[in-house]
Amino acid sequence: MSSSGERAGDRSIPAGTAADGPVARLKSLDNEAVLLEHIAASISWDQETYMPQRAVDERAQQQALLQSLAHERKTAPEVGELLAAAGVDPSSQDREVPAALVDTLGEVDAAFLREKRRQFQQSTRIPARLVRELAETGSRGQNAWITARKDDDYQQFRPWLEKLIGLSREAADALGHSGERYDALLDQYEPYMTTADVASVFSTLREGLVDLVQRISEAPPVDNSFLNTRFPVEQQEEMSRRVMTALGYDLDRGRLDRSAHPFTTALGAHDVRITTRYDEELLTSSLFSTIHETGHALYELGVGEDLHGTLLAEGTSLGIHESQSRMWENMIGRSRAFWERWMPDLHGVFPRQLGDVSVESFYRAINTVQPSLIRVEADEVTYSLHIILRFELEQQLINDTLSVDDLPEAWNAKMKELLGIVPPRNAEGVLQDVHWSFGAFGYFPTYALGNLYAAQFLKTMEAQLPSIWEDVAAGRTRPILDWLRTRIHRYGKVRSAGELVRGITGTELDPRHFLTYLTTKYGELYSL
Amino acid sequence: MSSSGERAGDRSIPAGTAADGPVARLKSLDNEAVLLEHIAASISWDQETYMPQRAVDERAQQQALLQSLAHERKTAPEVGELLAAAGVDPSSQDREVPAALVDTLGEVDAAFLREKRRQFQQSTRIPARLVRELAETGSRGQNAWITARKDDDYQQFRPWLEKLIGLSREAADALGHSGERYDALLDQYEPYMTTADVASVFSTLREGLVDLVQRISEAPPVDNSFLNTRFPVEQQEEMSRRVMTALGYDLDRGRLDRSAHPFTTALGAHDVRITTRYDEELLTSSLFSTIHETGHALYELGVGEDLHGTLLAEGTSLGIHESQSRMWENMIGRSRAFWERWMPDLHGVFPRQLGDVSVESFYRAINTVQPSLIRVEADEVTYSLHIILRFELEQQLINDTLSVDDLPEAWNAKMKELLGIVPPRNAEGVLQDVHWSFGAFGYFPTYALGNLYAAQFLKTMEAQLPSIWEDVAAGRTRPILDWLRTRIHRYGKVRSAGELVRGITGTELDPRHFLTYLTTKYGELYSL
Repeated sequence: MSSSGERAGDRSIPAGTAADGPVARLKSLDNEAVLLEHIAASISWDQETYMPQRAVDERAQQQALLQSLAHERKTAPEVGELLAAAGVDPSSQDREVPAALVDTLGEVDAAFLREKRRQFQQSTRIPARLVRELAETGSRGQNAWITARKDDDYQQFRPWLEKLIGLSREAADALGHSGERYDALLDQYEPYMTTADVASVFSTLREGLVDLVQRISEAPPVDNSFLNTRFPVEQQEEMSRRVMTALGYDLDRGRLDRSAHPFTTALGAHDVRITTRYDEELLTSSLFSTIHETGHALYELGVGEDLHGTLLAEGTSLGIHESQSRMWENMIGRSRAFWERWMPDLHGVFPRQLGDVSVESFYRAINTVQPSLIRVEADEVTYSLHIILRFELEQQLINDTLSVDDLPEAWNAKMKELLGIVPPRNAEGVLQDVHWSFGAFGYFPTYALGNLYAAQFLKTMEAQLPSIWEDVAAGRTRPILDWLRTRIHRYGKVRSAGELVRGITGTELDPRHFLTYLTTKYGELYSL
Repeated sequence: MSSSGERAGDRSIPAGTAADGPVARLKSLDNEAVLLEHIAASISWDQETYMPQRAVDERAQQQALLQSLAHERKTAPEVGELLAAAGVDPSSQDREVPAALVDTLGEVDAAFLREKRRQFQQSTRIPARLVRELAETGSRGQNAWITARKDDDYQQFRPWLEKLIGLSREAADALGHSGERYDALLDQYEPYMTTADVASVFSTLREGLVDLVQRISEAPPVDNSFLNTRFPVEQQEEMSRRVMTALGYDLDRGRLDRSAHPFTTALGAHDVRITTRYDEELLTSSLFSTIHETGHALYELGVGEDLHGTLLAEGTSLGIHESQSRMWENMIGRSRAFWERWMPDLHGVFPRQLGDVSVESFYRAINTVQPSLIRVEADEVTYSLHIILRFELEQQLINDTLSVDDLPEAWNAKMKELLGIVPPRNAEGVLQDVHWSFGAFGYFPTYALGNLYAAQFLKTMEAQLPSIWEDVAAGRTRPILDWLRTRIHRYGKVRSAGELVRGITGTELDPRHFLTYLTTKYGELYSL
């Protein structure tokens, strides 16, 4: 890897990084696992975009084979031996590698060993039987969920949910925790963060948001009726392409395609693709979804070249990932300045539909706040309340203080409490999200953490780039991208979410930045 | 595998096919190799169609890893041991497995062992060093060829060609042969066929074709000037899709995309994709190329389900593969009957360009015969002469009776001799084809063998399906597909090319069927 090679010029090569040393051998095994995962991402992308229908069974076999080959390379006893030989106890509960190693190896290789141990532990601790059972039950649970949602019949999904909660508890216990099972699950998605950390920031967030939503609901509503018309899909795609490339997404290193659900996926360090979906009646859905996915892709594409081909070459946590997508989508993409640049393009592409809509009207329309039932359609203010609801309920499910039988009622009660509305059907309530159906407990909080990280980063960025909003209004977003790249993207997984936040903003994660951002923006919009 | 499972009901399970027996274990190893090859095909298809430019280096690493994982599963010492345990000497020079095994195991499993041994021998005999050197030199040679052809500068390519010939000789000696090196190379593409076999049929073919081309060149030329106009690409694609699906290509099991060079590739038993390219000025190029690739795809998609997931689930030889593509492209697609069905569609899609062109005029235009320089643009009559030229020259190169220095001159002399024309530039002569640039010697003959197989099959088919041309004229090509499926496709590699020809037509391959087909068709067309 070039990281150790570069240092070789400065001083003698540390023992652990010699070409035939344990770190080099670990990197070689790691690189094979990374290549296999990128290949798996490639055929998975194909499955979601272009694969013919009848290929689905064999594609599942191909995926299973790739997963097992990658798993072998992460869990081989040799990995444990090499970690030990490199000076890292493979079974230690420490989060960090010994400080002396950081001095000898430098930050990158020390982080490599830290993450390699973490991966080794996580992938060896869950027994193969449980991995299989989770995968199988997740796959069948997802199918049951699809039908249950379609039929609005929670009972069809209930037994699967119960089984998945049981298996997730087992997995949490296998992964290890100090009494709080949910910690082990959360840590899979937001490494190094605890349930108590999240509960603490969400508590402040909850209070501030409930109050803000209440005040907005008392203000006169915004007119966004001009968005209720038809926007041909071809032109929507044209706008999506213009915007994403203007934001710095390089089509020599990615693609935009269509799929049932928008996603971003890395098929390689120089091949990060995004997808979106188009609905003729929902222009803003495809547009902001594309900007959101562009944010994810720019993060992956900004990882330092010295990390390429290693497990460090990806986003450090789902929360930080989401901070990137949400900063671009909401804080930049839904700003007044952004539309000063882009409204002329919208006028040009949709002259009939939007020709007489001003920047100000459009800005107000795309920032309408309205408590609603469906998380993925929620606005920037109410969104995090949907997450807090899920965070609170899934903790109770995992801790067995809420039964699956009582879940729909608990869901509806919390909707009433947080958003003041109650779903008329479970399909628009407890059955709306896919996550639990494949056993992803501990995932939801990362969405709201993304908002919090983003607002805190933005505050520092505004201080360091004082002309940022004039730049955005003039179409210059490159300074933002450069700022994010040098402080966040290039580090990949070298620095944890907490390290990034402290290093960039000087403090721990503080939800008040997001609340201030919202209060300022929506205070002005709704004349509160 | 279902083949042994089905027999289990009839009688006791033969020892070799028990679930834990050597055949079952071989099939499991084989299945992993097949899955890996399909995954490799998947990312290779992506590379040719949608992959962003900058991904090319990492994609090469991904491919190399997949190739080496598949290679491990084909060459593991365990494969040799399992073959021996199943009753097949892994180092025997026999082509067939012992007759007793066929009786015990049945045709399919016996063929599995035969092909497994063949693959084991071929992949273990070439040393890893030579495999690497061939791959590397082939890759660099191909790059050199691209530049050489662009610059019309044979000297840039000459040293690579020389090196590749040397490596191919080494490979041939490693693979083994009884004195004729070219046999070993040819056998990689057209298994179980020898140089002498090919030379014998090509000798008759050469004589007949030179004579026919001479007679046609003395006849008055055909008017095809109405094809010299613009055909928008979207409409060309529309026509391609209509025709390929009408021929029985199922879009639930494949796709049509665009690439620089048309190809067919199997990403799975139920996922065989084709590509084509469109040139606004060349309607017939995309149309017949699509029909050609459809012929290849129908073959792969027609392999029996009992063979799926094994090395038997593909075309038995490149020659037989080409017989399928060429039968659909030329014998059916360029027939008068076919355009009785399709001319109304052409009129509808291209009313301005072809609205007043009759079936007869179109039929004549798409069957124009004219000696030309470029193989891939050659018509049905002259095409095989381009192949005979390459076959004769590459034998001399491999046998060292022709030096690479003298090759361009030899090429031009043979063009004069066979087609009566001489390339003005090497770019349109010896530098036109990619094959030699990556070391594929012995490949070219399969193209012409395809014509010969196809004509011989067609003759039998016409006898067995007497109303075939009325059916084609009415748009009913399903009887043809069924005929090909039950006699050829479903057998995959179970039966060799020779076995198929003998089994279906009752005789050995005889080039006179193709000559008769041409003489009849073009005798009428050119009033000879």
